[in-house]
Amino acid sequence: MSIKIGILGYGNLGRGVECAVKKNPDMELVAVFTRREPEKLSVLAGTAAVCHVSEADDWKDKIDVMILCGGSATDLPEQSPAFARLFNIVDSFDTHARIPEHFANVDAAAKEAGKIGIISVGWDPGMFSLNRMYASAILPDGKDYTFWGKGVSQGHSDAIRRIEGVENARQYTVPVEAALEAVREGKNPELSTREKHTRECFVVLKEGADAERVEREIKTMPNYFADYDTTVHFISEEELQREHSGIPHGGFVIRSGKTGWEGENSHLMEYRLKLDSNPEFTACVIVAYARAAYRLSKEGMAGAKTVFDIPPAYLSAKSAEELRASML
Amino acid sequence: MSIKIGILGYGNLGRGVECAVKKNPDMELVAVFTRREPEKLSVLAGTAAVCHVSEADDWKDKIDVMILCGGSATDLPEQSPAFARLFNIVDSFDTHARIPEHFANVDAAAKEAGKIGIISVGWDPGMFSLNRMYASAILPDGKDYTFWGKGVSQGHSDAIRRIEGVENARQYTVPVEAALEAVREGKNPELSTREKHTRECFVVLKEGADAERVEREIKTMPNYFADYDTTVHFISEEELQREHSGIPHGGFVIRSGKTGWEGENSHLMEYRLKLDSNPEFTACVIVAYARAAYRLSKEGMAGAKTVFDIPPAYLSAKSAEELRASML
Repeated sequence: MSIKIGILGYGNLGRGVECAVKKNPDMELVAVFTRREPEKLSVLAGTAAVCHVSEADDWKDKIDVMILCGGSATDLPEQSPAFARLFNIVDSFDTHARIPEHFANVDAAAKEAGKIGIISVGWDPGMFSLNRMYASAILPDGKDYTFWGKGVSQGHSDAIRRIEGVENARQYTVPVEAALEAVREGKNPELSTREKHTRECFVVLKEGADAERVEREIKTMPNYFADYDTTVHFISEEELQREHSGIPHGGFVIRSGKTGWEGENSHLMEYRLKLDSNPEFTACVIVAYARAAYRLSKEGMAGAKTVFDIPPAYLSAKSAEELRASML
Repeated sequence: MSIKIGILGYGNLGRGVECAVKKNPDMELVAVFTRREPEKLSVLAGTAAVCHVSEADDWKDKIDVMILCGGSATDLPEQSPAFARLFNIVDSFDTHARIPEHFANVDAAAKEAGKIGIISVGWDPGMFSLNRMYASAILPDGKDYTFWGKGVSQGHSDAIRRIEGVENARQYTVPVEAALEAVREGKNPELSTREKHTRECFVVLKEGADAERVEREIKTMPNYFADYDTTVHFISEEELQREHSGIPHGGFVIRSGKTGWEGENSHLMEYRLKLDSNPEFTACVIVAYARAAYRLSKEGMAGAKTVFDIPPAYLSAKSAEELRASML
């Protein structure tokens, strides 16, 4: 009997979940829910139903885990608690500062309904958080570093697109190699924002736009670019589509720390992701945690959980015996 | 109230545990148990009792977690089940092929006594196992690679020392950079033993020994060296002590995998450790899992566990709320 998965929201992440479910033979996508007109939505998995979000109630007993693929700004703060009243859910809520509040809301709803709600799943928050946590528990006398990239930041790309005279844009966040190396050498450097990452922008101008003004507006934009060394390249829409249509990302979590009676020995723990597709990889992590949500629910557990709370074995399709024999 | 730790066996690992406990303010080393004469053993932590192993029974109610620092060949198969009848235990049993049997023995003993026994803790088995498992659950369509080194292999160093004419020796296992790069590029290469690692030996000869014969015996030794490209350097005892007295180790766990409806996107997950002191780092991992053993036991759980079974948050001195607010 396979785990029955539902998807709410069919953007890049929703399609990524659909692809990830296909790679997991113990799972089955049964329905995709959308706020658009279902008739106009064509999904990859021919066997899945396509329904309007208002019909979700009817699927209460036909879906084991509902995966919420909306955004963190406005969708998930409402959807996650609401759907945790009907389904076991997994979301990828990534507004770090609001996680405690989101956890409390999902926890209350899920406990009342006897459901599991795993929040903030993906790679950051998600696998990067796990690696920060394991590493700091193992090397308490140490220092953490997280570098992101090279990868596309949708938020920064959007910010450039809002500038007058800009037709299209793609922004890459790039870790500074020298900073990475200093961390790897155990030098425990204090790094400013500017020293950790640079920003590289590929911009398509509207006809007649003033390139110099656009470049200046980008480089001086507070919060987004002013604190970074930023490079701006003006290119054609064709080149943007040809060379910059992917959504790669990734990064590094590094902890360096000391051991020994007098702290005489140094250690480095490094976790690196290099991803061709940010949403597809995020979806893979979410789908593994959907398996965990299903199992926890079968055991009678309820409430909100994060990656910190889930025993690793719950993510794997293999049994505990198989894991011990083949992977330990 | 701090977690009361006992150490059984005071070699490199036992001393590493002693140092690691010092770095964790919620723990306290209360006693070290030895098979040697306790009077002749001087430990770093002045406040800890030093006792003969035969006195362990008397400490049943004074120690929360006993950390077993013996070897996997003969010590742990006997000690782990025996001590799990008296204490919550953590061991670093690392004979991969015998883990299922060891797990069953510890599980039976620990369940009978109502204790927790976490086995095979360290970095391989341990953190490397965890990373293999997480990565394979996330990217089911992929391939795993583990590389070890650069680091000292005690087993291989010992094997060289048993050759006639050898006074002392130190052997390093070294990953082949070209193989690592091929894996990082997502080429999914099939790698033979020889293609993954080389072996580098530093050997001190006894007076009058035949260097050529010793080198030949090393390079042709079955299992240990015959399947590898091996380099032998003859050096003086002084140089060995000066340049090769540390016990560094480390390595890489890499999984590359595909996502997308047709497997069109590639991803790389890499975990790397670079350790000045293999036993001290292993001890740090063990001590974090001792915290987990203590908590599981407080919750009334019993039986054998591995790193796959333990929710990550149980390793950290921080509360679940603190972890969510600061690390997720």
